[in-house]
Amino acid sequence: MTPSTSASADAPDPRRTAYDESFPAPAKAAIVGVGLLGGSIGLALRRRWPEIEVWGTSRNEARRRLAVETGCVTRAVADPAAACRDADLVFVCTPVGKIAQHCTALAAACPSRTLLTDVGSTKRQLVAQIEQDPRAAAMFVGSHPIAGGERTGPGHARADLFQGKRVVVTPTAQTDPARLRQAVALWQTLGSEVLQMSPETHDRLLAGISHATHFASCAVASILRPDELPLVGSGWRDTTRVAAGDPQMWNDIAMQNAGPISQRLGDVREALDRLIAAIDSGDSAALLQLLTEAQTLRKSLPAASAEHAPRSGHPENVSAARTDPAPGD
Amino acid sequence: MTPSTSASADAPDPRRTAYDESFPAPAKAAIVGVGLLGGSIGLALRRRWPEIEVWGTSRNEARRRLAVETGCVTRAVADPAAACRDADLVFVCTPVGKIAQHCTALAAACPSRTLLTDVGSTKRQLVAQIEQDPRAAAMFVGSHPIAGGERTGPGHARADLFQGKRVVVTPTAQTDPARLRQAVALWQTLGSEVLQMSPETHDRLLAGISHATHFASCAVASILRPDELPLVGSGWRDTTRVAAGDPQMWNDIAMQNAGPISQRLGDVREALDRLIAAIDSGDSAALLQLLTEAQTLRKSLPAASAEHAPRSGHPENVSAARTDPAPGD
Repeated sequence: MTPSTSASADAPDPRRTAYDESFPAPAKAAIVGVGLLGGSIGLALRRRWPEIEVWGTSRNEARRRLAVETGCVTRAVADPAAACRDADLVFVCTPVGKIAQHCTALAAACPSRTLLTDVGSTKRQLVAQIEQDPRAAAMFVGSHPIAGGERTGPGHARADLFQGKRVVVTPTAQTDPARLRQAVALWQTLGSEVLQMSPETHDRLLAGISHATHFASCAVASILRPDELPLVGSGWRDTTRVAAGDPQMWNDIAMQNAGPISQRLGDVREALDRLIAAIDSGDSAALLQLLTEAQTLRKSLPAASAEHAPRSGHPENVSAARTDPAPGD
Repeated sequence: MTPSTSASADAPDPRRTAYDESFPAPAKAAIVGVGLLGGSIGLALRRRWPEIEVWGTSRNEARRRLAVETGCVTRAVADPAAACRDADLVFVCTPVGKIAQHCTALAAACPSRTLLTDVGSTKRQLVAQIEQDPRAAAMFVGSHPIAGGERTGPGHARADLFQGKRVVVTPTAQTDPARLRQAVALWQTLGSEVLQMSPETHDRLLAGISHATHFASCAVASILRPDELPLVGSGWRDTTRVAAGDPQMWNDIAMQNAGPISQRLGDVREALDRLIAAIDSGDSAALLQLLTEAQTLRKSLPAASAEHAPRSGHPENVSAARTDPAPGD
């Protein structure tokens, strides 16, 4: 259950040394869905292998043009199958609800040597779907880069988006060992620290550290009346920040990872019930213990380095902002 | 229920014009508990009236020394009654659990002309306690500046901490109208926008925009196992930031405002239940609606100006940070 890192100790500069030279340098990569992540993969690949051909796809013409103009890809087309023809690497970067069908369709359009991967933030369900197709199963290794940014689209892509970030790779019993090694080496080459775990472990872990947090934040946000909003302080702003996220994207994630998310939201509800019970009964001792446990856990979080959390402007090593008087006496 | 502002339209520079000159300029102020808020009040008073004497109190000797060295007060003593002798203005800036007893005791030690106020983030219970003492009731006007900072103590005090911030003033039927006008004028003079509402309305409002948010954030934080922590992203960091706050301070707030906080936490639990039910039943339409409502509310929040939320480094006008792929297709 504890994730294990597969980063090799003797790779001080992963960009230069991690890619396993027993795999040939890729001549062509395809990125299905050139958004922030797909675009950043393109930039990172082109920085590492300046000769590489990178084809990107989008159904949106303006986005295709932008992907080429920003150098994320060398060529952009609408048809995923056309982009993947002869590709050594294929990255499926669409919303999670569409990843499995893309992978299955594209496996048939690619040469059998192709490494097929994705960037979806859920894994169990889509990996299981892909593995129902033997050809796709043999070519696919699931990936989830824990990286992103406030802004979306190829216009905000960065070649160093994965530098120092974690990427979870989710092999199964059906995964081809050579392709797994290739996927690990590839993400390390793009600067990431690679963790390996099963799709099930990934989904349980992400349900806690990301998905349930998102839905709980939405629950907190939703209780305010619009006329109360102008009075909120920085505490409410931060606690509910993620609730501004795209409903369709989070709906897709919930549908792909319902069980673990529901279980973790149940944990939040139980924690809430304990707090409410302590407050209702005036049980200071119980409340203090619950608050101290939460504080201890939160304070034990390693400080965000500039690389790991560039979006968060406030330092993590100061105590919580308060709209309340500092105890002065 | 809707708070009404009492800021006068013809006061473009509140520092210079708001103080009602029908009240004499204060010759002496006392600040019981010189922390961040108390210290900032001292600095702001001394900037407005350079001749004013400001006495501060703390039980902690190092803090008393610091309060004088940083210019927050002109003199620091351990005994609140000694500090308040002959004071025109008394600000009680202790933790909320101690404000009422301080106010009652200090009313007896002050001249009858004194304006007695506080900065507590709960109001109903402490105002009711104070009003059981007729002398204290006649001198007291409850205040709650919605301002603060990550750091505590007079070493982080700032003369402009209240500039552009909201201060809620909570008169009751027993409040002396002249003292109420004086309290409003005083906070305006320190640069604040003053809202007036009853202690009950204040506590219900704050339960939603601040207190319940804090406890819900603690509930979210508390479900993670320590071994999951190193993998969290910026979403978890922000959603749980306030959970690092002082348990004793929040315990005091919960005990002073138990009813409204419990009710608002019940609202969070109901919102959570609706999300869990939609996820469990795979009801995408219901889930999308709940997520869209939360998103709409969160996005309607006015962007934080530098003055209103100086602590929050990330701009509010960008969409939520994500660890997930931007929908690329």
